[in-house]
Amino acid sequence: MRLTALNTGLTITLGFLIAAYATSAFAFDEVEVEETVVVAEEGSEEIIEGEEVVEEEDAPPTLAEVSYAVDNVVLFIAAVLVLFMQAGFSMVEAGFNSSKNSVNIMFKNVMDVCVGVFLYWLIGYGLMYPGEGNGYFAFGGVGVSETLGSSPGAGVLHPQVDWLFQVAFAATAATIVSGAVAGRMKFGSYLVYSAVLTGLIYPVSGYWKWGGGWLDQMGFYDFAGSIVVHAVGGFAGLAGALVLGPRVGRYSSSGKPQAIPGHSLPLATLGVFILWIGWYGFNPGSQLAFTGQANTDATMLIAANTTLAAAVGGILATVLSWMFFKKPDLSMALNGVLAGLVGITANCDSVTNVEAMVIGAVAGVLVVLSILALDKLKIDDPVGAFPVHGVCGVWGGIATGIFGDYDLGVQVLGSVVIPAYAFVTMFILFMILKSAGVLRVSPEEEAKGLDITEHGMQAYSAG
Amino acid sequence: MRLTALNTGLTITLGFLIAAYATSAFAFDEVEVEETVVVAEEGSEEIIEGEEVVEEEDAPPTLAEVSYAVDNVVLFIAAVLVLFMQAGFSMVEAGFNSSKNSVNIMFKNVMDVCVGVFLYWLIGYGLMYPGEGNGYFAFGGVGVSETLGSSPGAGVLHPQVDWLFQVAFAATAATIVSGAVAGRMKFGSYLVYSAVLTGLIYPVSGYWKWGGGWLDQMGFYDFAGSIVVHAVGGFAGLAGALVLGPRVGRYSSSGKPQAIPGHSLPLATLGVFILWIGWYGFNPGSQLAFTGQANTDATMLIAANTTLAAAVGGILATVLSWMFFKKPDLSMALNGVLAGLVGITANCDSVTNVEAMVIGAVAGVLVVLSILALDKLKIDDPVGAFPVHGVCGVWGGIATGIFGDYDLGVQVLGSVVIPAYAFVTMFILFMILKSAGVLRVSPEEEAKGLDITEHGMQAYSAG
Amino acid sequence: MRLTALNTGLTITLGFLIAAYATSAFAFDEVEVEETVVVAEEGSEEIIEGEEVVEEEDAPPTLAEVSYAVDNVVLFIAAVLVLFMQAGFSMVEAGFNSSKNSVNIMFKNVMDVCVGVFLYWLIGYGLMYPGEGNGYFAFGGVGVSETLGSSPGAGVLHPQVDWLFQVAFAATAATIVSGAVAGRMKFGSYLVYSAVLTGLIYPVSGYWKWGGGWLDQMGFYDFAGSIVVHAVGGFAGLAGALVLGPRVGRYSSSGKPQAIPGHSLPLATLGVFILWIGWYGFNPGSQLAFTGQANTDATMLIAANTTLAAAVGGILATVLSWMFFKKPDLSMALNGVLAGLVGITANCDSVTNVEAMVIGAVAGVLVVLSILALDKLKIDDPVGAFPVHGVCGVWGGIATGIFGDYDLGVQVLGSVVIPAYAFVTMFILFMILKSAGVLRVSPEEEAKGLDITEHGMQAYSAG
Repeated sequence: MRLTALNTGLTITLGFLIAAYATSAFAFDEVEVEETVVVAEEGSEEIIEGEEVVEEEDAPPTLAEVSYAVDNVVLFIAAVLVLFMQAGFSMVEAGFNSSKNSVNIMFKNVMDVCVGVFLYWLIGYGLMYPGEGNGYFAFGGVGVSETLGSSPGAGVLHPQVDWLFQVAFAATAATIVSGAVAGRMKFGSYLVYSAVLTGLIYPVSGYWKWGGGWLDQMGFYDFAGSIVVHAVGGFAGLAGALVLGPRVGRYSSSGKPQAIPGHSLPLATLGVFILWIGWYGFNPGSQLAFTGQANTDATMLIAANTTLAAAVGGILATVLSWMFFKKPDLSMALNGVLAGLVGITANCDSVTNVEAMVIGAVAGVLVVLSILALDKLKIDDPVGAFPVHGVCGVWGGIATGIFGDYDLGVQVLGSVVIPAYAFVTMFILFMILKSAGVLRVSPEEEAKGLDITEHGMQAYSAG
Repeated sequence: MRLTALNTGLTITLGFLIAAYATSAFAFDEVEVEETVVVAEEGSEEIIEGEEVVEEEDAPPTLAEVSYAVDNVVLFIAAVLVLFMQAGFSMVEAGFNSSKNSVNIMFKNVMDVCVGVFLYWLIGYGLMYPGEGNGYFAFGGVGVSETLGSSPGAGVLHPQVDWLFQVAFAATAATIVSGAVAGRMKFGSYLVYSAVLTGLIYPVSGYWKWGGGWLDQMGFYDFAGSIVVHAVGGFAGLAGALVLGPRVGRYSSSGKPQAIPGHSLPLATLGVFILWIGWYGFNPGSQLAFTGQANTDATMLIAANTTLAAAVGGILATVLSWMFFKKPDLSMALNGVLAGLVGITANCDSVTNVEAMVIGAVAGVLVVLSILALDKLKIDDPVGAFPVHGVCGVWGGIATGIFGDYDLGVQVLGSVVIPAYAFVTMFILFMILKSAGVLRVSPEEEAKGLDITEHGMQAYSAG
Repeated sequence: MRLTALNTGLTITLGFLIAAYATSAFAFDEVEVEETVVVAEEGSEEIIEGEEVVEEEDAPPTLAEVSYAVDNVVLFIAAVLVLFMQAGFSMVEAGFNSSKNSVNIMFKNVMDVCVGVFLYWLIGYGLMYPGEGNGYFAFGGVGVSETLGSSPGAGVLHPQVDWLFQVAFAATAATIVSGAVAGRMKFGSYLVYSAVLTGLIYPVSGYWKWGGGWLDQMGFYDFAGSIVVHAVGGFAGLAGALVLGPRVGRYSSSGKPQAIPGHSLPLATLGVFILWIGWYGFNPGSQLAFTGQANTDATMLIAANTTLAAAVGGILATVLSWMFFKKPDLSMALNGVLAGLVGITANCDSVTNVEAMVIGAVAGVLVVLSILALDKLKIDDPVGAFPVHGVCGVWGGIATGIFGDYDLGVQVLGSVVIPAYAFVTMFILFMILKSAGVLRVSPEEEAKGLDITEHGMQAYSAG
């Protein structure tokens, strides 16, 4: 060990000196070349379209180009934040579930993104936003156009970043379901479900609103997806939970609920914080354009409203759990935060701060009540996916009509139709898988845990 | 305990409902103005002020608007990074503590943000930055103005994003304390503490400097809050640790320190990396404006200095722990990184790279020495909150006078007065809670762990 | 052991103090210039160069300044994302390893960043990007210039943010190795390795390409570092794994592989998600300029290609592992995602979406095959660092010639020379450390675990 010290010291010192001296002369010789390399990356527009535009090489960006850069780069950053939510979902769902099923649920989350990215590129995006170059099968071209059709400017989005932002939303809808069906659904069948949802079901109802379909034309409003994303995921999850039935032992033979506690609340807490952070991509990013005073102002209002709804949702769920259970319940608080976030998603650009807090408060109450209600109804939703995303998603859609100055009737309509569509189509899919005998693992496999039986590995190993 | 629940529940619920209902009339009065923000997404500036400016609908953003967009969006991203620090604090504090108290400490972190967001909206922001529309009680209006008073341009901040950035700082100050009082403080009393700190104590001393108060007028400088945020949290934590006394078994009957090891160093390490990342919102974001060469240049210097101080702080703490304990100690290294970050916070815009490294190095030494000193003094601070945030916060304030070309005397004054104020006010609060018999759990509860006794749940479950 | 501590301590401390003191005179000379940056926050451009330009105080940013702000701020955000990858590496490597070695490997990750930041500031950056003010020893000045030499505008990078982005890459290369040598390499020797790699080896080959050296002049292309970063790390790791030999018990006396399962797949999964997110800084950030239509467009294409390659890599690895092992393997899926990311890194700006998916697919296949091959060859690489970063890094470099319209011969040359250089130099270094008897811990220490024997602590504690 003494030699370590000596070696450390000598090697570091000698290494530095050799490197410094050996390179320095060489380095100075190349200085001129190096300079041109740095600048080189910037500005080759001269070869585009085969034209030679020699003078343009050093032309600085125009104001329209800078606006275009800001709008697209900010949407890109928002997309990254939404994709980060997948880490949050993984941790929440693994944390709230048994350790023996952790590998399985995280694997499902990972595949939701991987399969979702591929299929939403191939089909989903083109179905949801029909247009030139969007959708391989639907339009016979490449999946998503890799080049910008129109000339750049404020509010013009590059197709690639628009796709990236939208695929992150599709993956979110898919991943919500994994929590509701945790601990008993086969991995292979889950992949089928995931592919159908992100490739087909989600894009169709998404088109109804965001693609300019019939609900959009009726005036239905859903800013960032309380209905289009969260309620779709939540109601698809409910369908899965109903068709699968509860986990073995979740309700006693006399029908009494027996809690199966989550195996790691630290992971669940981390996951909720990550989801909260990711929501700053979800909601503010949905403004889609950020330059121009109206856009910038809206983005800032959205960010604050999102924060306030989350916080008040967390407070109300804590208070309510304290009243009901005599002790404040961390799981409820965490779900309350998520409930507030889901509730504000449809209307974060359309309400005042106070209204945002009222929406978050109601969501915080609803999530606790509906978790208790599911237990009464003996529906086993291990992470509360339906209460959080289903119930509070619908609340968000309706709240947009109450507070947001949109037609309440149309809001109720959209908030019923889209979730019902997701529920029915997914119910049918889950029933088909059930009939085929591939939906649920055997009771023996369930007892051993899906990690071992489905994947031959365990989440944790000693040593 | 039941009365605690009932009282806390009713107080918060009532407070919320009163605020919501009292404001609603006002809020609805503002609907017209508010609407301009909402519809603005579709490019409308034509309804503003009731004027019809039909032609302007498609007007591209002006240069002033693009500057405004960049400044506000970047501050928003910085706020998101600072909020992400809450995930870091949760993981660090849970990881460095016993697993039997993990739910409790993470719950405290979650509530710090939730309660902090609500109260800093309602009161704190208005106290700290008095101005039109800031602070419900203080100014009889909405908590924080939802619309921009002045015309947009470079350096003009939308009130909502300014609030968001500031509330993230307030929540940081609050959360620091949870580490120092871990493992023995009642949850209900912690909520009282948290509300008082974010609603009252932090805003008042924050006003002294950042709100333009007397310390600011004397020339005291604290760029991003070594004193205003970190030392306030650190000294409030010291007050809590002193009033509470050490955890049972932390010091033997003969007074010998007996380490209570953290239950998960992976979580703690993850937490420190997250905090480091979050600091890139904390420090660079505090530049507040990012367009204009001077602002951009300053932001880049700040980012590099923050990195260098963290790295050198980590190295020095590692080396020192290696010398003292014969083996390099990961906990010390992690605290050294945080120490460097706290130390550079006040002066990251005012020093050279080399000075930043010297500040980080000294912080890395100070944190190890003060952790050892606390142990000698039998003060039990489970995560080292006071050494990291208190001691190195003060060091940061003073270092600003040594390296940063600010008056050393004034720096020392501010670096003594604000921490002393936080310590004394919080000491009084903790003493009041102690006299009321609601500060500390019973020895039996402490032995069982706060997770079970306060929340009826455990952080980890087998199966 | 005492001397180790002392010597290491003194060497580092002295090195630091020398640097600090030697630079201080220079630094203080620059105080006037430096000050303009500092005060700039308050809106002053009037003191620059000593001129009084009273009217300019409120001058709004010019278009060039706004472009400059966007380019630099976005690169700063990208750098933050790349630095976040360190959290990902920590979690992946800790999760895929035994719990008894977790503290050790996370400590190595932390030190990779801390030591890397210091040495890359002091030496590495100057070696890699020779220029005025870059590199302390080589150029007798500060390590990296704190002020901008040229006038601001689109594509002009502030030296501090350029350094920050580059140091994050250097730390990435270094950290890759820690996974390959996990569970048996001494901490002190690892510090030596880490210092040599980030201070000397990586900068030299980095200079060959990104600094404008001979490979760059030959037309070799590596957009974001499949070769320059990942293959360097991967092949250095292979050298380490070969010189160290496998962990005790990894292969039975008859040569049969015996898996040593990772201790926490939740941490590993979290880590991969974080790495994926961090790659959005790694690849899109490498565009280095973001304003100007060509730059913005390229950035968006890069982001989408990165996503598609990762997703398809994950799918292919899952499918292949399912075929080989009869069950889908989460570890393989996670490594498949990383493989896709590494493969697309060199060419993400140069290929179409479909080509990106092909590159990701091949990477997903290669990573599974090479993990199996290493096992046949009895090379113990605990986290698959060589298959992911080495093999798929080389694949990325070659794929750039196949799909990316660069000369295939030159691509193959660069994809062989740089990895070979890293392998040979690191092999020599590891052999020197081995000859000195300081490379590997004793079998007894290995059995107990490096956490206890090297650091006197454990990753997890009950209670």
